[in-house]
Amino acid sequence: RINPDRLWDTLMDMAKVGPGVAGGNNRQTLTDEDSEGRHLFAGWCAKAGCKMGVDSMGNMFARREGTDPDALPVYVGSHLDTQPTGGKYDGILGVLGGLEVIRSLNDLGIKTKHPIVVTNWTNEEGTRFAPAMLASGVFAGMHTEDWAKDRVDADGKRFGDELRRIGWEGDEKVGERKMHAFFELHIEQGPILEAENKQIGVVTHGQGLWWLEVTLTGKDAHTGSTPMNMRVNAGLGMARITEAVHRIAMDHQPAAVGAVGQANVYPNSRNVIPGKAVFTIDFRSPDLAKLTSMREKLEAEAAQIAADLGLGITIEPVGHFDPVTFDEGCVTAIRDAAERLGYSHMDIVSGAGHDACWINRMYPTAMVMCPCVDGLSHNEAEEISKEWAAAGADVLLHAVVETAGV
Amino acid sequence: RINPDRLWDTLMDMAKVGPGVAGGNNRQTLTDEDSEGRHLFAGWCAKAGCKMGVDSMGNMFARREGTDPDALPVYVGSHLDTQPTGGKYDGILGVLGGLEVIRSLNDLGIKTKHPIVVTNWTNEEGTRFAPAMLASGVFAGMHTEDWAKDRVDADGKRFGDELRRIGWEGDEKVGERKMHAFFELHIEQGPILEAENKQIGVVTHGQGLWWLEVTLTGKDAHTGSTPMNMRVNAGLGMARITEAVHRIAMDHQPAAVGAVGQANVYPNSRNVIPGKAVFTIDFRSPDLAKLTSMREKLEAEAAQIAADLGLGITIEPVGHFDPVTFDEGCVTAIRDAAERLGYSHMDIVSGAGHDACWINRMYPTAMVMCPCVDGLSHNEAEEISKEWAAAGADVLLHAVVETAGV
Ligand SMILES: NC(=O)NCCC(=O)O
Ligand SMILES: NC(=O)NCCC(=O)O
Repeated sequence: RINPDRLWDTLMDMAKVGPGVAGGNNRQTLTDEDSEGRHLFAGWCAKAGCKMGVDSMGNMFARREGTDPDALPVYVGSHLDTQPTGGKYDGILGVLGGLEVIRSLNDLGIKTKHPIVVTNWTNEEGTRFAPAMLASGVFAGMHTEDWAKDRVDADGKRFGDELRRIGWEGDEKVGERKMHAFFELHIEQGPILEAENKQIGVVTHGQGLWWLEVTLTGKDAHTGSTPMNMRVNAGLGMARITEAVHRIAMDHQPAAVGAVGQANVYPNSRNVIPGKAVFTIDFRSPDLAKLTSMREKLEAEAAQIAADLGLGITIEPVGHFDPVTFDEGCVTAIRDAAERLGYSHMDIVSGAGHDACWINRMYPTAMVMCPCVDGLSHNEAEEISKEWAAAGADVLLHAVVETAGV
Repeated sequence: RINPDRLWDTLMDMAKVGPGVAGGNNRQTLTDEDSEGRHLFAGWCAKAGCKMGVDSMGNMFARREGTDPDALPVYVGSHLDTQPTGGKYDGILGVLGGLEVIRSLNDLGIKTKHPIVVTNWTNEEGTRFAPAMLASGVFAGMHTEDWAKDRVDADGKRFGDELRRIGWEGDEKVGERKMHAFFELHIEQGPILEAENKQIGVVTHGQGLWWLEVTLTGKDAHTGSTPMNMRVNAGLGMARITEAVHRIAMDHQPAAVGAVGQANVYPNSRNVIPGKAVFTIDFRSPDLAKLTSMREKLEAEAAQIAADLGLGITIEPVGHFDPVTFDEGCVTAIRDAAERLGYSHMDIVSGAGHDACWINRMYPTAMVMCPCVDGLSHNEAEEISKEWAAAGADVLLHAVVETAGV
């Protein structure tokens, strides 16, 4: 078993970097705070005897040697970046849980046949630079590195420039590494495990996703002196499409979700009818047919709403992945570990996207989840218990050791 | 008659201060650009032989002496501040049209009995600091000066601090001046005069207004892993209320308008269900019963929408004035002037709020309007013709001279 106190203290130490405003974190990707968190993690890895490699997307790889020089490593990890108002565990638990696996193996003097590598993937959250899971996506060949580095944030800053600025552009070629398997520990970010009173979620599938960015073009005009019938109100169009996203998701129940997360009107002035609106839609389902249907229905309805109001409309896809089925062998390793350790468990579908979803395309991959209070995540109030964290890391330890061999 | 070329050139010179991004202006109140525009105007007034006074709200008063030392001055003016993406004429025409009246009187060697004062009222637009017509409102005793100076912009900067920072807090006590009458020349900001092919609008009434700021409180949560029935989506609430504002205004046709101009969700992240939304509602009507009814209906509907979605709601009034009836004598002076000069004219209701609406509470007041292309205003593409501007200033000249006596 891993050391619950050490894991918890390490989580709390990382949470000091880039504190939020309400008890959580704001350690967005490629900020100074991200760089500081990476240094802290690198220091811990060095102390645990690992050798660090960094690739040209800033992905970090801390390697503990195995006994067989020819064996491909077993990878574990997740991400250290957070939402602007994010929690202390989303991603972090997977990285520091991986570190705890290595520390525990060191304590126990266990040598594995396959090396073990703990990974911190760059820009998992996708908030500052869309899409999410950007650097693991490049690693898995889903995006080119050039395209990824050209992504810009809301201030027009390039991913590539910001990575270099914070000093974490490594010299390893992205995706060069080969894996024996990949395991990711993550908090559920949803309410199911807690409701079902289970300690462990064995993640068999992941939802697919469409992120769409909508731009509506109307006409800035005076809110007082412009008659109702002369208005070309982009904000009203945004309101109607926001409602349509919600209704379409409800029409596809169960196992489908949809919401507008970002919403901006221009010029955003009290007495100006918005002449422009830019907003993002997030649709997800574990069922590809539903996912496709939601996107298609929305596109048709949005076009009609824009036409009714006389608005110009563009809908740009800014993120996409199909539903994921994780590797049976890796899933079994996790289920068996939970069973062996006596933790209550259930099979579960990941509602969120994860780096594991991309890596699964290349190498045998699975995920282990632990509950979080009220299913709350992407919120500074995100919370888990020390016991939940420890159970997840225990299962990770066993699945990894089983897969890496002794 | 005034000098059309000089008026136009003066308008174009002012438009060089705080240029916008699309041919208009961004000279928001109490910015460095506002200060620069004030200096330019003050220089022109000095050259025209006027004495400048500035009160502690930054209102500027350029005085041309009359022949009777005991006569109260006739005031003319409007505002030099603009929307963030504003036009070159909204407000500016009224101030520089007033200056042109004085320049023309100088040219013609006409001395009036009553002095004439050209005024630039501070923060008419109300975009940076709500409410609109803030400083003329303090002048007219509608707000206390302390309250006005405590208004904050989106960055939390205080009106009072910003006024001092740009160096335009004068030493005159606000509202101390007494007026014989007040005339404001303004572009229509609506489509009626152009559609009716009239050169001059004789403004008999002004619409009343309610500005409401709504805050909805839900729960930030993950867009992917939060089931639909567990969401407390403040962005969806904003969408529904935005639609309700539109429908309520439509239900009160004719002579009623409503829109949401500012709309912000938090944390405004692609994969976070908005836990908070803050937005502003603008309702107007020349009919007090309709204005009141729209506000009441909206408050009831919004409360129901919030309750349905489990959202917390607060609705704060941030601006209000009742419909205005301008002074019959001043209105007649304007109508007679248009008639005498041979300009086509019609009576009109102002759709926008104006400093004249507040001053009308204290002193005999009226407004003259000229058309603007496509009724477009609060848009950088706002446009008028030199002929329209000249006709408006001619009417202003005649109404002022008539009222000030020779
Ligand atoms: N796990 C997680 O929140 N990832 C961010 C991408 C997503 O929105 O699913
Ligand atoms: N004239 C004008 O646009 N004033 C600003 C206040 C309002 O929105 O009516």
